[in-house]
Amino acid sequence: MAPVSYGDLVTDQPRDGGAGGPLADRLSLGVAARLSRYLQVLTQARKMGKETISSQELSEYTHVNSTQIRRDLSGFGKFGKRGVGYNVDSLVSQIRKILRTSGQHNIALFGAGHLGRAIASSDIFADHGFRVVAMFDTDREKVGETINGVVVRHTDDVRQVVEDEDIVVGVLAVPTAAAQDLADLLVDAGVKIIFNYSEALLQVPPEVTVHTSSPAVDLLYALYFYLT
Amino acid sequence: MAPVSYGDLVTDQPRDGGAGGPLADRLSLGVAARLSRYLQVLTQARKMGKETISSQELSEYTHVNSTQIRRDLSGFGKFGKRGVGYNVDSLVSQIRKILRTSGQHNIALFGAGHLGRAIASSDIFADHGFRVVAMFDTDREKVGETINGVVVRHTDDVRQVVEDEDIVVGVLAVPTAAAQDLADLLVDAGVKIIFNYSEALLQVPPEVTVHTSSPAVDLLYALYFYLT
Repeated sequence: MAPVSYGDLVTDQPRDGGAGGPLADRLSLGVAARLSRYLQVLTQARKMGKETISSQELSEYTHVNSTQIRRDLSGFGKFGKRGVGYNVDSLVSQIRKILRTSGQHNIALFGAGHLGRAIASSDIFADHGFRVVAMFDTDREKVGETINGVVVRHTDDVRQVVEDEDIVVGVLAVPTAAAQDLADLLVDAGVKIIFNYSEALLQVPPEVTVHTSSPAVDLLYALYFYLT
Repeated sequence: MAPVSYGDLVTDQPRDGGAGGPLADRLSLGVAARLSRYLQVLTQARKMGKETISSQELSEYTHVNSTQIRRDLSGFGKFGKRGVGYNVDSLVSQIRKILRTSGQHNIALFGAGHLGRAIASSDIFADHGFRVVAMFDTDREKVGETINGVVVRHTDDVRQVVEDEDIVVGVLAVPTAAAQDLADLLVDAGVKIIFNYSEALLQVPPEVTVHTSSPAVDLLYALYFYLT
């Protein structure tokens, strides 16, 4: 298979159906998604003390074809040694650089119910530079409570907190019926990324990115490959 | 753009780096993933009482290019009417048929902590035909408790329950350190799909599919498109 250069991985095709025109130097959706998946596995491998990893191992954990993996990674320089595999540390930092997400990013978490508590107590976000710096709820009984070092505030304070704490991501761990109002609040406050754990189809302006978590969809997808 | 037929969406490339050989009549990973995402949005749109949806709307909610959406869906027959959009109901049943996941699938959920409770109380899985029929924990204080109609059992009973309840999916909402042992238990009991909410890199035989939930990775990915 012919080697693919970095340039080939970049697309000028807009990701959202036409608005915006050509976007030079931007990875395609597919490449960015795969790099993010490699990064997850590599981060965990590093935690487990692994120093090197082969494309075959990466393939087993990510379900991406190993040829595709070698192709994706070959574009970014010579990380891999035949028979040894990739150096985990250097691959982590290279992918972070490519994804331009090496820094610290502050999260505001909405909902102090079971899901919110699970997210606040997990280090799944922290491992990737995301820090829950604020929690919100509308329930006056929960406001004031401290969860994993973060005090739960009332949603009335959102705008001020977003500004003071430099919040870039709002995570909605709330009932579906409450999600749109909170999304509106976040948009008003200038937050550009919303991570939606509810089932609501959120309406936001084009400059705001909504990611809706979809465990059931992931299951459907897994089931498809099991059934066929 | 030339229309793409159903056949073009099917790949014979194995998804796991070579094992297994050509898999005829199987959707590519990318197509199956996109169809699953369309299905999520369509299911929610139906709940909200929407009868039709345009490729542009689908694009806004899924972040898939609308040209790509029309291309994916044109392969499966004439669902779309110009200017009217797709009929939500018929698109839901067609995609379910294509993904071969129209039936009812039983889930065993491990971990009765905050995350497990959040999952058990959510209808995110139920909307797509997945039913939590069993919950497990190792904590004797939680065993016997009823959560959303399901009694928490001890993990000692896994094998019997998997058989009795026809479990096809095991969901791990447990600490990272506990995940591999439970995965081994599930594999021994014959479960073929494991949905992993922990950070563990699970070792399983090739016939078992592990999906690791990765909210932080999804955030990195969203952030990439925000920063660039």
